[in-house]
Amino acid sequence: MSELTIWTLDWVPQGPRGFVRDLRLRWACEEAGLDYTVRTIPFDGRETNHLEQQPFGQVPFLKDKDLEIFESGAGLLHLARKSDKLMPRDPEGEAETLQWTIAALNSIEMVTVPWWFLKICGDENNGLTEWMGQRLGHMERILSEQEWLAAKRFTVADLLMADVLRVSHVRSFGDRPATEAYVTRATSRAAFKKAHADQIAHFEAADRERAKEGSN
Amino acid sequence: MSELTIWTLDWVPQGPRGFVRDLRLRWACEEAGLDYTVRTIPFDGRETNHLEQQPFGQVPFLKDKDLEIFESGAGLLHLARKSDKLMPRDPEGEAETLQWTIAALNSIEMVTVPWWFLKICGDENNGLTEWMGQRLGHMERILSEQEWLAAKRFTVADLLMADVLRVSHVRSFGDRPATEAYVTRATSRAAFKKAHADQIAHFEAADRERAKEGSN
Repeated sequence: MSELTIWTLDWVPQGPRGFVRDLRLRWACEEAGLDYTVRTIPFDGRETNHLEQQPFGQVPFLKDKDLEIFESGAGLLHLARKSDKLMPRDPEGEAETLQWTIAALNSIEMVTVPWWFLKICGDENNGLTEWMGQRLGHMERILSEQEWLAAKRFTVADLLMADVLRVSHVRSFGDRPATEAYVTRATSRAAFKKAHADQIAHFEAADRERAKEGSN
Repeated sequence: MSELTIWTLDWVPQGPRGFVRDLRLRWACEEAGLDYTVRTIPFDGRETNHLEQQPFGQVPFLKDKDLEIFESGAGLLHLARKSDKLMPRDPEGEAETLQWTIAALNSIEMVTVPWWFLKICGDENNGLTEWMGQRLGHMERILSEQEWLAAKRFTVADLLMADVLRVSHVRSFGDRPATEAYVTRATSRAAFKKAHADQIAHFEAADRERAKEGSN
């Protein structure tokens, strides 16, 4: 049995498939060549049925032998210690990777996720739109000048930033060709494709389970 | 000359004083007993005058000898490697500290900052209010059960979470006594008080400079 376990939901509706954040951890393990097992908590009651493992009722969380760690960003930084494929070992490359990993979480996703939240509540031209445009504009400028964010090669910072930028509400927010090329570049990697296909297959298997139960 | 330099703005209006995020890095250095120098970039033109150092036009950023690192969260994790006062060295304590540091950035601040942004734009009962209440409610539950977030003692995760929770728009959002006690506990620490007083003094000195220039 592998030492790493990625916990996610047993089933989700079609909409979030391919985007549930266990994909970040699957992708990182695939890039680094780390074995892992996937286990699940029930979708029904998810808001309160695993607060002991994840205090905000979210997925994923990661188990590494006896260690448990929640927050996908923390899981990624934890996995990055296991492989220099995810994070370079020289101080400069490490600092660059760390800063861009945090930037994905706290400078980009901090705007894009609340903007999306307001959008799905019916308010597309909401009070965060200008801020969203500014932040994505900064990313477009940066990505038009460099292929990857840190250390001149793919790192866990790109894995996270590309995952933040590849969602449809960000991709359709204005015309940003360098960002689009970056997302394509990152999601063309074999490790992403494997992680993505595995997540889709995981939820499709759950559909079949549900259908079987329904026919009993 | 100290090896660490914290970069912030040369001046800000009264409102943000005591809350500019160089305080996070000052506080961490004070907790860890690390020497540091503070240097500044001009407030006027701040949105574009230091994009080479900070690609979103924000402060702070940190210089450690030849390394430059932006994002206050990344700066904190970088400083945490220098002192076990900020992050325990055992794997469990380290993982706990890492996950709660990321939670402060990506589960709490990701809601509280956009909520505040909409509020100052005049929309206090905005579409993020219910989400904000849920997240702060989870924190209240957690903080009613434990004194500090990780490793049963103060860590850099508390430094960051307390800094996220101590802003007035969060403190005045409902009645959450455990959170309020936590914020009081964290901000009663000598290192916080020193960092806070130093930031206030820094901007007051800038006021005097500006007044002198005005009288020439």
